[in-house]
Amino acid sequence: MKVYEFAGFPNPARVRIALAEKGMSDKVDFVSVNVPEGEHRKPDFLKKNPSGTVPVLETVDGTVISECTAITEYLDHIDGRPFLTGETPRQRGLIHMMQRRAEADLLDAVGAYFHHATPGLGPDIETVQIADWGNHQKGKAINGMRYFNSVLEKSDYVAGEAFSMADITVYAGLSFAGFANIDIPEECTALKKWHERVSSRPSIAA
Amino acid sequence: MKVYEFAGFPNPARVRIALAEKGMSDKVDFVSVNVPEGEHRKPDFLKKNPSGTVPVLETVDGTVISECTAITEYLDHIDGRPFLTGETPRQRGLIHMMQRRAEADLLDAVGAYFHHATPGLGPDIETVQIADWGNHQKGKAINGMRYFNSVLEKSDYVAGEAFSMADITVYAGLSFAGFANIDIPEECTALKKWHERVSSRPSIAA
Repeated sequence: MKVYEFAGFPNPARVRIALAEKGMSDKVDFVSVNVPEGEHRKPDFLKKNPSGTVPVLETVDGTVISECTAITEYLDHIDGRPFLTGETPRQRGLIHMMQRRAEADLLDAVGAYFHHATPGLGPDIETVQIADWGNHQKGKAINGMRYFNSVLEKSDYVAGEAFSMADITVYAGLSFAGFANIDIPEECTALKKWHERVSSRPSIAA
Repeated sequence: MKVYEFAGFPNPARVRIALAEKGMSDKVDFVSVNVPEGEHRKPDFLKKNPSGTVPVLETVDGTVISECTAITEYLDHIDGRPFLTGETPRQRGLIHMMQRRAEADLLDAVGAYFHHATPGLGPDIETVQIADWGNHQKGKAINGMRYFNSVLEKSDYVAGEAFSMADITVYAGLSFAGFANIDIPEECTALKKWHERVSSRPSIAA
């Protein structure tokens, strides 16, 4: 398999963590797409992913899958033990719910702030910037941190008692927030403790 | 089971279609939440769904699941035959990819236009409106229609040769677009034919 990505970016990190959790990191060739120089918007890459985003997974049979949730679904089901996305209907519902909240209320909100209300990846890449939108989404991201803090006051992980895809998305959201200089509110101690704890998982610390 | 919703709205429609496709419509009590009057933002409802969105599913054991993808995952796995979300890793990857594109590039883009660049649900509900963002997202929705047209020129359904969760999301997106007066571009004949075809499915026509 191949993963087209740009190392260190938040969404590629999600797939790298999922691969490591599934013990599959050594089954993948990572192919770098130079996002800061706009390679993700050139025809060759758009043929693979018309949305122009990384990461993209290309399977051994040539199937091309973009979107982190979709890639994680694929990887998680190969061994028939989908522990990242849920092994029962109830787990699946709760994990997908929290994963979607983690995108909408944290990771994508931070992304909107970074790309719209800061210089982002520079003028050649940030061709549409709506600062009011970006700043509004910064507030949403901080509210999102408070929400996940309240969740983690009551349970060990984002979607219950086991590490899942939802934890990966919150982790990526906090990493991106750190990069974009959005601090975790002081009072969010449960979120900070969870962040320390998951940061030491082999799939993340490695 | 209970589904908290507001009948006729695009996201509740997604869950109604999924229930009908799974033959489970008669196992659910639908509870109306008066979104136009702001009931979704009152404490009683926020206890169920802190995101303040409908639909929300409450299972027989009291588990509360929001977000359409998550609810569909739950419903689709109850009978052990997840044909809406995919029965193989490859199908799951492709369906989740196309479902996410259908949200980001069509349904949510139409929603952003409606809530930010039109009167939307009125001044009491639309407390934050960033018109530039809404109008930008209208353009994204129209591009999304062109993209799904190109997909449907080559395959019968949005994520391959069978009806799936991704079709439900595109259908909801086109319904919302019609409501918000965003027309399908004239040249998108494959998308229009697909729309006619899925509109006659019992799960949708009923």
